[in-house]
Amino acid sequence: MLELIAGGSAALEIAHEVSAKGDGAFPLASAALLCPIERPGKYLAIGMNYRKHIEEAERLGLAAPTNQVWFNKQTSCLSGPFDDIVAGVTNSLDYEVELAVIIGRPAKAVLEDEALDYVFGYTVANDLSARDWQRHSTTFTIAKSFDTYGPIGPCIVTADEISDPHALDVRTFVNGELRQSASTSDLLYSIWQQIAYLSAGVTLEPGDILATGTPSGVGVGMSPPQFLKTGDEVRCEIDQIGTIINRVR
Amino acid sequence: MLELIAGGSAALEIAHEVSAKGDGAFPLASAALLCPIERPGKYLAIGMNYRKHIEEAERLGLAAPTNQVWFNKQTSCLSGPFDDIVAGVTNSLDYEVELAVIIGRPAKAVLEDEALDYVFGYTVANDLSARDWQRHSTTFTIAKSFDTYGPIGPCIVTADEISDPHALDVRTFVNGELRQSASTSDLLYSIWQQIAYLSAGVTLEPGDILATGTPSGVGVGMSPPQFLKTGDEVRCEIDQIGTIINRVR
Repeated sequence: MLELIAGGSAALEIAHEVSAKGDGAFPLASAALLCPIERPGKYLAIGMNYRKHIEEAERLGLAAPTNQVWFNKQTSCLSGPFDDIVAGVTNSLDYEVELAVIIGRPAKAVLEDEALDYVFGYTVANDLSARDWQRHSTTFTIAKSFDTYGPIGPCIVTADEISDPHALDVRTFVNGELRQSASTSDLLYSIWQQIAYLSAGVTLEPGDILATGTPSGVGVGMSPPQFLKTGDEVRCEIDQIGTIINRVR
Repeated sequence: MLELIAGGSAALEIAHEVSAKGDGAFPLASAALLCPIERPGKYLAIGMNYRKHIEEAERLGLAAPTNQVWFNKQTSCLSGPFDDIVAGVTNSLDYEVELAVIIGRPAKAVLEDEALDYVFGYTVANDLSARDWQRHSTTFTIAKSFDTYGPIGPCIVTADEISDPHALDVRTFVNGELRQSASTSDLLYSIWQQIAYLSAGVTLEPGDILATGTPSGVGVGMSPPQFLKTGDEVRCEIDQIGTIINRVR
């Protein structure tokens, strides 16, 4: 996948041709979908980026951001759209649905109004978090990076197929109960602002993943907090992209 | 290098044999030394880990840590031991010398007293930081990840050659003036505690880099602060490993 993305429009055209021919095609239902990008160079994520989630976080004592708050998930946590989640050494496992952007070509000092040109596509991410470890420090990364804490998928929808990434509904269900429901129109910092901010100092590269924030409704924000338990099924879905389902074991 | 490390002791033995034969050897002075590991899976770094640096940071309003504080540098910032530093969009570029540990084999749920078995070797790192961007949020990663902000080297000294990594002197000179000088004996959390903490939830992998903290003497802690300017030469050195020299342009 990293090679396909780095290959640019020429590689994508070949992929379209092969796909259109249908040689070697088989039913989707017979396939086990794997993680669409296993080892990108970066898996960055922005915190506190839905207006209603900021209110929720403020009630928990977190200050509202005055700048973009970027942390990241170690890429070793990436897993497939239907893989199990292993909680590991925490008793406060929590979900966060996020629209994830896949970078398409090297991006440095990109202007907001040119940022779309650097997007390869979009996928669904569940930014799983160990809330107790998150309180160990203000830097987030380890609490967000336990093995299996990074399911993404079920596919990457290329940028040309999403008319407006800031008008997508995102939802999380836990055992069928709706927990998060919002529109990416509520993003505080747009995807274009995110790419402009990051690329001011850091080169974004083909295959890099940017998770664009989670809306309100996370388990730690409920009263009392509702953390994930063994056997729970977490379903994250985003319109025009699809659904990922991961079970806790 | 990643393949050599992942190859374990068998690969290292072959490297020793080839090296002992001396075939194709050439003078070190004629070689341009490159970054010893260009794209590891992780470049993690612990903050506030020298007792005297914690006092310095507390004077600047940062709270003393009650747990290990891990952030990370994006691997795209890695550069060679004698490469130039490009400041980029900051006016408060600062240095931080650190002993960096290179992980040798997959490490999960490792006990402190077994942690040494998972170390491939050690190198010198300069954890360059844009202090103004560091104040944008409490997560650090972007301010620490500008392109060229990750020089390491000049070599990786294998673990068997360092009798005690907690008894090494580390120093930084700016234009020949001594700025940082400490011993890794002053580390708050030992390397073994660091590996145990991280690997409780996250698998560390061959080639992963752990920067073990910086001592007092950083530019932002001086009165008034002394940030790096164009043309400045930063020299970081650690006993038994070597010296990296990077010039700001």
